[in-house]
Amino acid sequence: MAKFLSERNLRFLLHEVFDVAALTQYEPYKEYNRGLLDMVLEAAMELAEGLLWPSFQEMDKNPPEFVGDQIRVHPSIKKFMEKCGEGGWIGAGMPFEWGGQQLPRMITIVCRFIFSAANYSASVYPALTSGAARLILNFGKEEIKRIYLPNMLSGKWQGTMALTEPEAGSSLSDIKTTAEPTEHDYYKIRGQKIFISAGDHDAVENVIHLLLAKIKGAPAGVKGISLFVVPKKRVDEKGQLVPNDVVTSGIFHKLGYRGCPIAQLSIGDNDDCRGFLVGEPNKGLLYMFQMMNEARIEVGVGAAAIASAAYYSALEYSKKRFQGRRLSTKDPNLPQVPIIEHPDIKRMLLFQRSVIEGALGLLVQCAKYADLASVLTGEEKEKNNLLLDLLTPVAKSYPAEMGLLSISAGLQCLGGSGYCDDYPLEQYYRDARIHPIHEGTTGIHGLDLLGRKVLMRDGKAFQLFLKEIEEAILKARKFEELESYTDKLKESLQKLQEVTHHLIEVGKKGSPEFFLADATLYLEFFGIVSVAWQWIVQATAAVKALRNNPNEGDSRFYTGKLFAFRYFFEYELPKMEGLAKRLMNSDGLTVNIHPDYFFD
Amino acid sequence: MAKFLSERNLRFLLHEVFDVAALTQYEPYKEYNRGLLDMVLEAAMELAEGLLWPSFQEMDKNPPEFVGDQIRVHPSIKKFMEKCGEGGWIGAGMPFEWGGQQLPRMITIVCRFIFSAANYSASVYPALTSGAARLILNFGKEEIKRIYLPNMLSGKWQGTMALTEPEAGSSLSDIKTTAEPTEHDYYKIRGQKIFISAGDHDAVENVIHLLLAKIKGAPAGVKGISLFVVPKKRVDEKGQLVPNDVVTSGIFHKLGYRGCPIAQLSIGDNDDCRGFLVGEPNKGLLYMFQMMNEARIEVGVGAAAIASAAYYSALEYSKKRFQGRRLSTKDPNLPQVPIIEHPDIKRMLLFQRSVIEGALGLLVQCAKYADLASVLTGEEKEKNNLLLDLLTPVAKSYPAEMGLLSISAGLQCLGGSGYCDDYPLEQYYRDARIHPIHEGTTGIHGLDLLGRKVLMRDGKAFQLFLKEIEEAILKARKFEELESYTDKLKESLQKLQEVTHHLIEVGKKGSPEFFLADATLYLEFFGIVSVAWQWIVQATAAVKALRNNPNEGDSRFYTGKLFAFRYFFEYELPKMEGLAKRLMNSDGLTVNIHPDYFFD
Repeated sequence: MAKFLSERNLRFLLHEVFDVAALTQYEPYKEYNRGLLDMVLEAAMELAEGLLWPSFQEMDKNPPEFVGDQIRVHPSIKKFMEKCGEGGWIGAGMPFEWGGQQLPRMITIVCRFIFSAANYSASVYPALTSGAARLILNFGKEEIKRIYLPNMLSGKWQGTMALTEPEAGSSLSDIKTTAEPTEHDYYKIRGQKIFISAGDHDAVENVIHLLLAKIKGAPAGVKGISLFVVPKKRVDEKGQLVPNDVVTSGIFHKLGYRGCPIAQLSIGDNDDCRGFLVGEPNKGLLYMFQMMNEARIEVGVGAAAIASAAYYSALEYSKKRFQGRRLSTKDPNLPQVPIIEHPDIKRMLLFQRSVIEGALGLLVQCAKYADLASVLTGEEKEKNNLLLDLLTPVAKSYPAEMGLLSISAGLQCLGGSGYCDDYPLEQYYRDARIHPIHEGTTGIHGLDLLGRKVLMRDGKAFQLFLKEIEEAILKARKFEELESYTDKLKESLQKLQEVTHHLIEVGKKGSPEFFLADATLYLEFFGIVSVAWQWIVQATAAVKALRNNPNEGDSRFYTGKLFAFRYFFEYELPKMEGLAKRLMNSDGLTVNIHPDYFFD
Repeated sequence: MAKFLSERNLRFLLHEVFDVAALTQYEPYKEYNRGLLDMVLEAAMELAEGLLWPSFQEMDKNPPEFVGDQIRVHPSIKKFMEKCGEGGWIGAGMPFEWGGQQLPRMITIVCRFIFSAANYSASVYPALTSGAARLILNFGKEEIKRIYLPNMLSGKWQGTMALTEPEAGSSLSDIKTTAEPTEHDYYKIRGQKIFISAGDHDAVENVIHLLLAKIKGAPAGVKGISLFVVPKKRVDEKGQLVPNDVVTSGIFHKLGYRGCPIAQLSIGDNDDCRGFLVGEPNKGLLYMFQMMNEARIEVGVGAAAIASAAYYSALEYSKKRFQGRRLSTKDPNLPQVPIIEHPDIKRMLLFQRSVIEGALGLLVQCAKYADLASVLTGEEKEKNNLLLDLLTPVAKSYPAEMGLLSISAGLQCLGGSGYCDDYPLEQYYRDARIHPIHEGTTGIHGLDLLGRKVLMRDGKAFQLFLKEIEEAILKARKFEELESYTDKLKESLQKLQEVTHHLIEVGKKGSPEFFLADATLYLEFFGIVSVAWQWIVQATAAVKALRNNPNEGDSRFYTGKLFAFRYFFEYELPKMEGLAKRLMNSDGLTVNIHPDYFFD
């Protein structure tokens, strides 16, 4: 069995850094303790190793096919959805009363990490079902819950997010799908949806779309969007499943992530598609944002997970592949050395670890904010919600963008073999390219971070974020070996404040175009500082642990961790310099260039 | 016909920046003038548009197959090789006396750019044949030339570079293929070669391998490598082609660049493979470096070419795709705007142009050094050779590495459509990933640049390089609108000197491991400065031209050019800051970490 993640690192993050077991003092998690939580992770590993990993490459080579009016997927998906139902994975974060496992978000996202590292495409099916089910749980009527939740949580019915349309991708306000009220409890839905992940397939008996549409006469733009449950097959009076006029009209052929189909749907062409309103009219986007925000964190998790699998694959190769000699002893009569002896290979491996483990720290941190927000009240609840809101675009985009570079470095370790399908690196390279695109492109997240999140509530979330980092610095400074690094983090925090202040001033003076022109670079900058913060937090835990006479294995783990930490500070953090320089120069270059100048 | 490159930009570089026609004063090029050279480019465009572009996607979807003992390639390859023979493209840079066109290198690499932008895979077949033929021309015996050159230049026989073996990739000194002298004019060859591009296929009647092997008893390492011509079929006494015991034993399935097969060859398994020595024994690597150095420049050209095609494809989409509204006018009742109106899309487009046109400038610059070295004598010849040597790893690696990011940005412009094969972006993304690997990985080029080229002849090449940039700065300073940019370039040149000096001192004091640990980052740094230099050169030409009352189209071209130039200086050049910071810190982090620390 090839290694695709570090279980030791997951335990480190959950217990030593974020102390997940502390949550068991709160009502929803009282049934759990550290031992039980660890058992959940072990069960996830078992499923990942037994079912997901073995079909990883096969699912890529035998992608879904659109035959007749039905998309056929790899047979292991049916097995996996059943196992997910039986094992409670789809309802992992849902309340006991609906048959869920009521687990903290920190645990559910780490389980998602495990599944995604083993087989990203497969991991999407239950995750989408979870997200859709949670929307129904939170905003749906009792009757809707009763019909859909049990079938979704058991893995019999697939859930989806049906947002995108041919003319409405990043611009959701332009959706054209309509909902016409009837005298019954349903609306008639009509429209086209594209790029719907797991939007149709034969591993389940039904597909439940959480779909955005506009009720006839609704206001223009996002304020006129409502949320509906639109099943592929609806339940008739006799309790039978009958077609609901949701027709699969096409499938997209993708660069990677091929194990999961992306469908085009024609809805209500025969005027017989029934949709059931969720919550109040015209508030659909608000509800959907709950699912989208969760999904954004999970995209970050998926990106870090693929990068993790790529890292361990590159590592394995680097250990076994003999090539060249040390730079200091070039004698051709000496035997060749494993390439992991070469500094440049070690540099590429450390780069990968520094990205993956740093990003994963940020993601578990976000999950912790979500968990705390759900159990705390008043100001503390608000604080955790604000931090989660602020960091969501960062926790989605940093792993998505840097994961690509990390995987590319992994592929590079293999040289020509990395380019060939005898090794999985080329697949990871393809699979991961979706992440800067789906659940909002990186550009959209840049606008979200700078144009909305940093400004919201008069900058309150941003202030809380600065405070979080300052507190982490204070804790780290108790250890002299971390002192020089805390200085560096302070400096970059200072720069982040300067840049933020500068941009806000630009926004006050000029048009939003100048303010937001480099929002994507601001997001990149913000991501580097955020991950540096997470590395200080992890390094503090590692240094502390090393002082407590750990055993040999643990000592090796902590020492390796500190190398990756140092790598981040010495090689990655300095990238901020160039970004800050650019961001302080709001010359409007990209605003001012007229489109005509691109074509010659 | 979709646009895949800017002909206007090619004319700008060749005539306005590098004045290719000035070469016609020298003997080898006396037959040419500007008009004739332009006709060559037009003919290349015609072939690219008529034959290469139409089969670009088809060749990817129908990759070569290994059937029986023969690799079958797309039928358009046979036509293309014939056309290349008829049109003189394979012998474009070869002397008239051998049926060549005796064209300057500046023209031949621009033609290669045209072919590669239209269809990278296809462009490799004639290019490899050219390179192999040139090796035979320069170092082969008269009889070898007589047999091989006419058949290769006519496109009837394919040429290859047969270097890599299962245990000898980056470490060529470890090749195991042997050559045993006989009493005849040939050696008996025996061994395994892998990753041989166009190493076998059915579009030609013969394949001629320029192959590295060790003559029995030769010294260990690179000093024992000899070069042989090893045909797939040899010419017998009657002038018939008979098998030469070169057997295709496999084909690799690749991420991209699928139109060209990469073969595994078993040579001399039946003790009947004849190889013909080229030049003197044990000097094979020296000769091969001529072909490799040319091939490295062409890899840079191929990388820039694919990025160019990706750019024009992304541009076309950005013009036609309507999505969202201006950041300053978010009213949902207004119609959507083409996405090329969004600053973030314009940023991604400018990024691509700044990389592609900057890199292409550097490549034509290298070709100019090669051309001048071939017509000049004495110190001037040496100067041009040294500059070419120094810049070859940079001109290969900058386009290879940055081309990937450029294409990724192009794909990103399309959002979800970029991830699907309805558009060619996903193919460009796959095709281009080979470039940081073949013809020496980026890591190898880092070592070559810092460990060899910068130091050679007591740093003479490096000094010449600094002087070239200083001269360019002087010329640019005549135009006040360029003044602030020349200051920035001066600063970065200063930093390059500081970093170089620092590293050389580290090398003097410590082991080569510490000196070379970050050689890849040094290469990246060097690349940014080199491309900034090329942008100053191009900007100077553009500013000059704008002062001469150009017509509307030209004025638009020069203005767009200056936007791309400014983009490079404002967004790309600052990346140097973080690199410099890291490079000045030779803490040996990647040298010191023991491999054991990677595995937990």
